[in-house]
Amino acid sequence: MAQKKPLNIGLIGYGFMGRTHSNAYKRVNDFFDLEYRPVLKAVCGRDPAGVQAFADNWGYESVETDWRKVIERKDIDAVDICTPNNTHAEIAIAAAKAGKTILCEKPLAMDLVQGQAMVDAVEKAGVANTVWYNYRRVPAVSLAKKLIDEGRLGRIFHYRAEFLQDWTISSDLPQGGAGLWRLDAAAAGSGVTGDLLAHCIDTALWLNGTINTVSAMTETFIKERKHNLTGKVEPVGIDDACAFLCRFDNGSLGLFESTRYARGHKALYTFEINGEKASIKWDLHDLHRLEFFDHADDSLIRGWHSVHVTDGDMPYMKNWWVPGLQIGYEHTFVHQVADFLADLAAGRSTAPTFRDALVTQAVCDAVLDSAEHKKWETVVPV
Amino acid sequence: MAQKKPLNIGLIGYGFMGRTHSNAYKRVNDFFDLEYRPVLKAVCGRDPAGVQAFADNWGYESVETDWRKVIERKDIDAVDICTPNNTHAEIAIAAAKAGKTILCEKPLAMDLVQGQAMVDAVEKAGVANTVWYNYRRVPAVSLAKKLIDEGRLGRIFHYRAEFLQDWTISSDLPQGGAGLWRLDAAAAGSGVTGDLLAHCIDTALWLNGTINTVSAMTETFIKERKHNLTGKVEPVGIDDACAFLCRFDNGSLGLFESTRYARGHKALYTFEINGEKASIKWDLHDLHRLEFFDHADDSLIRGWHSVHVTDGDMPYMKNWWVPGLQIGYEHTFVHQVADFLADLAAGRSTAPTFRDALVTQAVCDAVLDSAEHKKWETVVPV
Amino acid sequence: MAQKKPLNIGLIGYGFMGRTHSNAYKRVNDFFDLEYRPVLKAVCGRDPAGVQAFADNWGYESVETDWRKVIERKDIDAVDICTPNNTHAEIAIAAAKAGKTILCEKPLAMDLVQGQAMVDAVEKAGVANTVWYNYRRVPAVSLAKKLIDEGRLGRIFHYRAEFLQDWTISSDLPQGGAGLWRLDAAAAGSGVTGDLLAHCIDTALWLNGTINTVSAMTETFIKERKHNLTGKVEPVGIDDACAFLCRFDNGSLGLFESTRYARGHKALYTFEINGEKASIKWDLHDLHRLEFFDHADDSLIRGWHSVHVTDGDMPYMKNWWVPGLQIGYEHTFVHQVADFLADLAAGRSTAPTFRDALVTQAVCDAVLDSAEHKKWETVVPV
Amino acid sequence: MAQKKPLNIGLIGYGFMGRTHSNAYKRVNDFFDLEYRPVLKAVCGRDPAGVQAFADNWGYESVETDWRKVIERKDIDAVDICTPNNTHAEIAIAAAKAGKTILCEKPLAMDLVQGQAMVDAVEKAGVANTVWYNYRRVPAVSLAKKLIDEGRLGRIFHYRAEFLQDWTISSDLPQGGAGLWRLDAAAAGSGVTGDLLAHCIDTALWLNGTINTVSAMTETFIKERKHNLTGKVEPVGIDDACAFLCRFDNGSLGLFESTRYARGHKALYTFEINGEKASIKWDLHDLHRLEFFDHADDSLIRGWHSVHVTDGDMPYMKNWWVPGLQIGYEHTFVHQVADFLADLAAGRSTAPTFRDALVTQAVCDAVLDSAEHKKWETVVPV
Repeated sequence: MAQKKPLNIGLIGYGFMGRTHSNAYKRVNDFFDLEYRPVLKAVCGRDPAGVQAFADNWGYESVETDWRKVIERKDIDAVDICTPNNTHAEIAIAAAKAGKTILCEKPLAMDLVQGQAMVDAVEKAGVANTVWYNYRRVPAVSLAKKLIDEGRLGRIFHYRAEFLQDWTISSDLPQGGAGLWRLDAAAAGSGVTGDLLAHCIDTALWLNGTINTVSAMTETFIKERKHNLTGKVEPVGIDDACAFLCRFDNGSLGLFESTRYARGHKALYTFEINGEKASIKWDLHDLHRLEFFDHADDSLIRGWHSVHVTDGDMPYMKNWWVPGLQIGYEHTFVHQVADFLADLAAGRSTAPTFRDALVTQAVCDAVLDSAEHKKWETVVPV
Repeated sequence: MAQKKPLNIGLIGYGFMGRTHSNAYKRVNDFFDLEYRPVLKAVCGRDPAGVQAFADNWGYESVETDWRKVIERKDIDAVDICTPNNTHAEIAIAAAKAGKTILCEKPLAMDLVQGQAMVDAVEKAGVANTVWYNYRRVPAVSLAKKLIDEGRLGRIFHYRAEFLQDWTISSDLPQGGAGLWRLDAAAAGSGVTGDLLAHCIDTALWLNGTINTVSAMTETFIKERKHNLTGKVEPVGIDDACAFLCRFDNGSLGLFESTRYARGHKALYTFEINGEKASIKWDLHDLHRLEFFDHADDSLIRGWHSVHVTDGDMPYMKNWWVPGLQIGYEHTFVHQVADFLADLAAGRSTAPTFRDALVTQAVCDAVLDSAEHKKWETVVPV
Repeated sequence: MAQKKPLNIGLIGYGFMGRTHSNAYKRVNDFFDLEYRPVLKAVCGRDPAGVQAFADNWGYESVETDWRKVIERKDIDAVDICTPNNTHAEIAIAAAKAGKTILCEKPLAMDLVQGQAMVDAVEKAGVANTVWYNYRRVPAVSLAKKLIDEGRLGRIFHYRAEFLQDWTISSDLPQGGAGLWRLDAAAAGSGVTGDLLAHCIDTALWLNGTINTVSAMTETFIKERKHNLTGKVEPVGIDDACAFLCRFDNGSLGLFESTRYARGHKALYTFEINGEKASIKWDLHDLHRLEFFDHADDSLIRGWHSVHVTDGDMPYMKNWWVPGLQIGYEHTFVHQVADFLADLAAGRSTAPTFRDALVTQAVCDAVLDSAEHKKWETVVPV
Repeated sequence: MAQKKPLNIGLIGYGFMGRTHSNAYKRVNDFFDLEYRPVLKAVCGRDPAGVQAFADNWGYESVETDWRKVIERKDIDAVDICTPNNTHAEIAIAAAKAGKTILCEKPLAMDLVQGQAMVDAVEKAGVANTVWYNYRRVPAVSLAKKLIDEGRLGRIFHYRAEFLQDWTISSDLPQGGAGLWRLDAAAAGSGVTGDLLAHCIDTALWLNGTINTVSAMTETFIKERKHNLTGKVEPVGIDDACAFLCRFDNGSLGLFESTRYARGHKALYTFEINGEKASIKWDLHDLHRLEFFDHADDSLIRGWHSVHVTDGDMPYMKNWWVPGLQIGYEHTFVHQVADFLADLAAGRSTAPTFRDALVTQAVCDAVLDSAEHKKWETVVPV
């Protein structure tokens, strides 16, 4: 492995996403033949003991407790931003100015204005960048993209997506602080819209193109929760659930829904696309299946194909095991790192870039505006 | 059977629904122990040869070619309206005035005004009445109602329903006339909203209560089709697809969608309800299954229960075969006739009554208004 | 309907199968255009009150309490045998001698010797005959036959079938008498072998040809049960479960299993066939689906097709409703009557004939012999 | 990580299993808190270039081309045997004599005699040992074990398992040599029996106890294939398919089948267990689901529970991600290494040990004997 170029990673934030990214960096060269090799150079967190324990576990060479230090360090090539949403912009803009390659967790920003500033910063600095909308790289989802690009669906009539969870139904669950910042509007910006729908929107934009207009509704079912940072019961500022109608530029109709109050679903991200010639369905709880209906099939055997996406000719699968054997959630991050490193060697950013993620941000903003004003909103073009 | 009271049926219209109803009348006494026995006294249609062939096939004692004759006949007890939507009101109001018991196909009317007149007529006349929203009486759907009424779901957060078909995707399909009046706005009033969403709304009102406000969008994908009645290519006036967001009076959020452009789905009516304690899912393509998630289950075995609704303690099932053996679509009509005859003996109308169906009409009207005006609409209380 | 030829039915036995057959006779002409029309002329049972109630319910014109009377009556054209297995031979042979058309419940006989005598009798008398192996006429199963006959599977490697129930697990369940004669070896001959595996074998012979050799095991899990006819606890003589390996004449391997002790399955009849080019799966609990895997599919969309067998070009389906709408268990009997009446008009018997059913009997006998002697047995050719 | 005890691994063989094991060693400490840390000290293979490339890819410190060298090296603590089956015994016995800890791929040996010698060797040497029957450690399979051990199923009536593949249907596929030794009887000993059924048997013995007697059949569908080692078309000596009936010591009946000729199935390992109180089903193609039917459920909601085994209280899952997010095939090996290292620290071997695997070998031998002699065989007690 000595001949590979090291890419020194500085990871900022070491929560759940810090784990998924660290795992991806450590594994990618075992399975993908790449010019670059990520090196776990530094991890940063505010709690010295916590960040040190994380570094020990994953093998980071050093720790920092101030993210500015990471950016100042000459031995860091790439900054990976895994902190709460309200810190993305400041860190990313500083990293761009310092000429660092940037991998940023989603959603890109708190809002479109912030996001635009981030895009401006990376484009001005000319640094490679990507945003961790990891679900594009589930092999079955990548296969969907391929089938659509080959024109197999024809004219698209419908796109629908859901992201259903059930982990915040209990009113005893507090908001804020480590592990629960996603319930704190100040840190997260929004609730399910930025956390879950943003994934659905990213995939939809990738698979089905521009969204023009939206009509949304949101709800906060539990109005008050104890706040971990203040110790007091405080109003809940996030959306517990959000659903919206939309129209795509290609003339198709969209329906999106997300909630953390769908009893029985842990992380049920699903989408379905209906085209004139064929339809596609996918479901994160059975992530290796792509359901495909082909109207061209002989009528006696026409029905949804349940494609178990594990053969070697399927996206990413020749790098793993043998047909029939599954990979899991974590591999989507490995795939994104693999693509990122290959793109880096080729001198380009990896989709979804900051600019791609800005379009998702624009849709999210329009959705939240629509819900607030109870009317259709046009998505701001970016 | 001699001791059973005859109920002389006059069937108006002999298309697809004429068949489903005739079958129900002929079979109900073989399986249900009832005071009344339907007699196929007369069937009415404008084409003498067509209606005679239908009468011969099903064993109707006589035929008429003018529906007014059916209503005038003293030997007709109950009028069953299976004609296109634009004729329901006139026939039903006349039948009510003539003191006939009325069974009317759905949707009740072309709009709320017409529907209100129909309700006024039957209530003034004091005649028993029902509307054929047959899906309530799929055993699994009736079971859902029972589970909800027992309080097993707790506070409801979400209701979502779809009715997806794919039979009008071809632009070669004409509109209008026998078998295709559902594509002709003059005869049908609306497209999928009155034909398919009306079913979803009827079930939702039954299971989840009042809908207060809606935001909808509709689309007509094929803008012109040959019209069978004029022989000319004419604009298509119906909605090919319709989706809407709504808020229920119980605080839950609703999402509804219907289309005839969902390649791969023939008659996929599905609904899902998420409650604090439990969730329910159902699907017409596997109509004997009710999926039930019970949060109270021991965590090691907690998961969606796939309930095969065939045991003798399930709604309607003791009247049929043995556990494990399925019934089908047509049986929903038999169940409605069975309930109707039992209610008749008890001196009451059978839900959904005209008044129940008027509420569905109000939601449909609000949905179409919302789509036209591109804004949230309040459902008119009825 | 006056122009149709009446076929006067004499039904012997009025249990569960008496109901399914009566329903089929009453409904067939509503849905199928046939030269013959079954007339419910007489039903026979030993309990005068019971048989009269059945006749009243279903509209039989007369009742008999001795089956010999039915056979003697000149106004009976066809004898339908729905009695316990130990009476089939005597009734059928007498009916054949009297020149009656015969429809006999499965299994044909108590054993091969008896069955051979029945075949000899009908063939000597030249009377039309059929045996009610109804599952052949589930539309999805008929479709499987069609696909195989078209050569779509290629060389067959494997055939496997199961019929799993769970209704006799309680040791409190008695044996013998009305409704429970299937647990009484004297009346039933065998347990699951004749009751359930016989269905699996009939389908397998139809779809995959001759079975040459078998190795079986049986088990009686509950050794003693109260006997309803004697009132005493008596040994259980039937097989509660039976499984066997076999070799088909076409070189494929077979695996069959049946039990009434599979907790969670009410009537789970499944089969799967693996061919060189394609495979097929079917499941009675979702009876409208045929799963089809076609190796010729483009590799990116290759997967099991879930064919919802409801379109008009599917076997029997043009006679029922519209695409997407399901029929059920009872319709298999309607289909068999429809085919029987069409064949009768054409002067031939309807498969499975007595002779076809004799082959199934030979396999059942070999299976029971193999289990008893704990060795491979050759199926006696018939 | 400095404080962890190193365990120096010597991997012999670097094919598919070499990859799965190497990955497990590299990842285990990132996710499990263990006293030991595996070190990739040496990998051994006969092709110097091939083994060096493997070492470079995975980070092995050194290579060997003679397995005896690995065993002689003082810096190797544990020998991992990933070579073809015909070499397991010699290597394992030598490793035991050298006092090495041993991890051996399955099946243990070519036959019972060889296997017994291996067991004697490790037991005499007192070295920790385990055999890579990895499917025990799919979280859903471990959950099945837990539910059974808690007595949730009650008396067991039935156990059935299948392992279906379709990768050898083409007659153009050669036998023998790298990647294809599993088709070469000299290297593999048997075909699907040792390769696939051995997994089914291991799980069955673990979940359901001793198998007493078997009746089997095998088939070789393609009788001759080109041999890669000789270049000539030679008879195929392995079983392409094998099925067997068996009786367990607990009175339940077993049915097992495996084949590489089941078109449509890549690696479909399934099992189902029917108990008096509950039943369990599992399927490797959807490996995170455990289907559980609980007869104690209230009858209105009684049905198979589809348990998505991802919550933190499920076996192994607290070490991975969050509820709803899946792991894959490769993690079974990580789990086995984690358990192995924990057991090593506690001074014991990890099940399945060589002795456990010997019982599986005894069943495999009885199965092959039964197929050859076409009669029931008693499994030799070990």
